[in-house]
Amino acid sequence: MTLLVAITGWDPAPWLDRFRRLLPDRPVVAVDEPFDPDTIRYAASWKHRPGTLSGLPRLEAIFSLGAGVDHLVGDAGLPDVPVLRVVDQDLTERMSEYVVMHCLMHLRRGWLYDERQRQGLWRDERDQPAARDVRVGIMGLGVLGQDAARKLAVMGFDVAGWSRSPRSLDGIATFAGDEGLRSFLARTDILVVLLPLTPATRGLLNAALFGGLARDGRLGGPVLINAGRGGLQVEADILQALEDGSLKAATLDVFETEPLPAASPLWSHPAVRITPHNAAMSDPDAVAAAVVSQIRRHEAGEPFRHAVDLRTGY
Amino acid sequence: MTLLVAITGWDPAPWLDRFRRLLPDRPVVAVDEPFDPDTIRYAASWKHRPGTLSGLPRLEAIFSLGAGVDHLVGDAGLPDVPVLRVVDQDLTERMSEYVVMHCLMHLRRGWLYDERQRQGLWRDERDQPAARDVRVGIMGLGVLGQDAARKLAVMGFDVAGWSRSPRSLDGIATFAGDEGLRSFLARTDILVVLLPLTPATRGLLNAALFGGLARDGRLGGPVLINAGRGGLQVEADILQALEDGSLKAATLDVFETEPLPAASPLWSHPAVRITPHNAAMSDPDAVAAAVVSQIRRHEAGEPFRHAVDLRTGY
Repeated sequence: MTLLVAITGWDPAPWLDRFRRLLPDRPVVAVDEPFDPDTIRYAASWKHRPGTLSGLPRLEAIFSLGAGVDHLVGDAGLPDVPVLRVVDQDLTERMSEYVVMHCLMHLRRGWLYDERQRQGLWRDERDQPAARDVRVGIMGLGVLGQDAARKLAVMGFDVAGWSRSPRSLDGIATFAGDEGLRSFLARTDILVVLLPLTPATRGLLNAALFGGLARDGRLGGPVLINAGRGGLQVEADILQALEDGSLKAATLDVFETEPLPAASPLWSHPAVRITPHNAAMSDPDAVAAAVVSQIRRHEAGEPFRHAVDLRTGY
Repeated sequence: MTLLVAITGWDPAPWLDRFRRLLPDRPVVAVDEPFDPDTIRYAASWKHRPGTLSGLPRLEAIFSLGAGVDHLVGDAGLPDVPVLRVVDQDLTERMSEYVVMHCLMHLRRGWLYDERQRQGLWRDERDQPAARDVRVGIMGLGVLGQDAARKLAVMGFDVAGWSRSPRSLDGIATFAGDEGLRSFLARTDILVVLLPLTPATRGLLNAALFGGLARDGRLGGPVLINAGRGGLQVEADILQALEDGSLKAATLDVFETEPLPAASPLWSHPAVRITPHNAAMSDPDAVAAAVVSQIRRHEAGEPFRHAVDLRTGY
């Protein structure tokens, strides 16, 4: 009945604390504490060290504590049990806060007016498009992409979505697969990327893709917002696209290497906004509650939800 | 049948152009062109020079071309005909873009991360509240306030509204009058002001009001967003409140004197965001169409919409 918590990169203490409070009826152990492998029924992982979840004969499920599961794919010794993604309302809402905020800042030239304030300059731009004049395209229509799409549409943006396999969303135009990508990009002024990192998506945000974005939009050039994974993007191509005009601006929350190295020219590029991979943080309270709710469901005989296929990576 | 266009402060040319295109069947004249006073049936005003709308015996209505009508109140010679406010979907949506964007930037510490980027600093804040943890209070529940309230609620904020006379809004807690103000302020972390400027609201945003805002909120102190009118605020009190902690930050689109004088300490205050009165611009296309639609309705025998009572100012 024991839950094993295997975390690197984050402080495990608040996670252990939450799990112990929510599961007072059973042991919760950290992976670097002594434990009997025969007792482990569940594992909660964030970037666990490869191999540390093997040799657990009674393991029934692995819970990923963040939105992505790409950290699990590299572990060749991962036991063959269900891998469950965290789908938590809190994380979804925080991602939409970030996406809507950055779309609005690009629409309303927020950083331009910040700069004018620093210069003490009272000057308005004449040609201010409305949200309805701007086409946002969301790549990735899972729970995060769907929520962001809906909220962007409420704000008035002209929203469409793209996913690998076809999806239908109320009131949102959708495109799918390689054959839908070209039409999707051609009608996109702001590209919002919420894709998982998989072998098929690694390096997808490159020169060829940027070259397919709409050039005739009301923002004066395409804008990229990547809040998915750093491995999706080719940073040299982003810098080149900003030079040659295939991109006008970018908001990046994720990077090929994190933290973003001090030497990266992205830091000081005037058209790039950088945040330290915090668009949607895993909140221990909310995520631990979601994991415990899955355990309770499972033990009541109901199926797990949000199972991941590690071959496709989502 | 003639429409008289009386504008100062803006370029009248695009307005004359729009009206002439939308009303090909009748004359449209600018107030400084020669015209026969007996022919004027309608006047479209933005800050017209006081007196210039008097002596028009057949005038049937005055249309204000911006969201406010305070510019009409000072004209003692204003004829006693219906005064119609512009209520235009475009202007409403632009105001909500501005309000939601600034609420999100305060919530998500947008300007702090901009500053960290300038410093090349990769550092995340631990304690990031979600929208649902933050109480937004909207003063003014007309068309603009209602639209902003609805969109802020969709983004997850805990929204309430205050108006002089009681209003009820689906899913939004409302407060009214002097007796409701104290409870409203006491539950407000971000105060969004969309009030008209009237004798009753002039100088309302002062030390006493700021002192009533919630001090226990998740943002570390109350935030003021004024996108209504500059005359609503006492700028000396805003600066003092930022000193003594009754305000943590402010977004100001409007000022006691506009353009904001170069000597104002607001320009360089690190907790103040300034925009040049452009939260919601009157778009000639959209506003002229709304005016013409009112004229057509009136001439088809239907009542005017959005009439203003100049004694109360809204």
